[in-house]
Amino acid sequence: MIFYDSPNPAPNPRRVRIFAAEKGIDLPSQEVSIPRREQKAPEFVAKNPRGQTPILELDDGTVIAESVAIMRYLEALHPEPCLFGTGPVEIAEIEMWSRRVEMILMPAVGAVWVHTHAFTAALPGRNVEWGEANRPRALDAMRFFDTSLKGREFLAGEAFSAADILLLTTIDFAGFVGMDMPEECANLRAWHERVSARPSASA
Amino acid sequence: MIFYDSPNPAPNPRRVRIFAAEKGIDLPSQEVSIPRREQKAPEFVAKNPRGQTPILELDDGTVIAESVAIMRYLEALHPEPCLFGTGPVEIAEIEMWSRRVEMILMPAVGAVWVHTHAFTAALPGRNVEWGEANRPRALDAMRFFDTSLKGREFLAGEAFSAADILLLTTIDFAGFVGMDMPEECANLRAWHERVSARPSASA
Repeated sequence: MIFYDSPNPAPNPRRVRIFAAEKGIDLPSQEVSIPRREQKAPEFVAKNPRGQTPILELDDGTVIAESVAIMRYLEALHPEPCLFGTGPVEIAEIEMWSRRVEMILMPAVGAVWVHTHAFTAALPGRNVEWGEANRPRALDAMRFFDTSLKGREFLAGEAFSAADILLLTTIDFAGFVGMDMPEECANLRAWHERVSARPSASA
Repeated sequence: MIFYDSPNPAPNPRRVRIFAAEKGIDLPSQEVSIPRREQKAPEFVAKNPRGQTPILELDDGTVIAESVAIMRYLEALHPEPCLFGTGPVEIAEIEMWSRRVEMILMPAVGAVWVHTHAFTAALPGRNVEWGEANRPRALDAMRFFDTSLKGREFLAGEAFSAADILLLTTIDFAGFVGMDMPEECANLRAWHERVSARPSASA
């Protein structure tokens, strides 16, 4: 298999790298440069019509796109350590918290990135007013996660999970875009320090 | 357990109803009226701080929010018929297609709904230009799914899955918002007819 990867600050490929590192999986990889728009090159679009990294290409040519889909593939192949939960409630809570990251924080950060950041200024369809409206939303989302993390070691409970990987990569991407965690978010900041100290975070 | 449900056209509660119907699960439910803003009432927000339906409240008081999290809970309790896949590739492909619905089609439909529809005119933070910019994106997303469905019975392959439920509920919500499937989308239209003919679709 080949993992088509893009380096930081791209948040989605990093999710998969952290996930694989937590499981001790060595993914043979090939770099796709986003600044050089290699993800939009015909040979890549033939693999993923969405023109996005990451993808995982299996030996039989099957392509798995979408970071979380690749993570679920790796989980099914290498169940330990389990990062999507075992048992109905744990599975559901990890999915709930993962979706909250995806539905509340990531769209707001993405809108600020796509509609206001200097690096994306050449993209068509910018709406700066919309981008700016999402800046306070991203910070409010961080406050929601801060409140949610009160008294918890990890986002979905006692154990490190895929939900932590999603939140970590999104928070770090928000920092790259220019939105740091609010000062008063002590729970979120402590959690961020905890998960950033794991060896996988450098992946 | 109690399933806090909202009637059509709300797309997310319907996902869970269809999922449960496919599995033959009878969910004891209680209605939460979105037009009456009952999802924002203090007693509901105490259960789900996001103020959104659906949620599933278990007998011990645990609350599972987010449609897909509830679906995963039900899948773990009632594995048959399997709707999230078995085996690494099938699991990954269902997740990939589910995420494509969530990341490509649903945000565009949601933006048209929130920023342009008469029913949401009183909500703060409307950006009509942004809403209108998403109308062609929603139709382009439908064309992407149309192309993807060529030669396939169901979205993620040979078997009906959670990905079909997500696409069906999103397409039907788009129709409610005023965006029908483009005439030329013959594969998508045939798929829509197929999945809409299943008894679960009336849930």
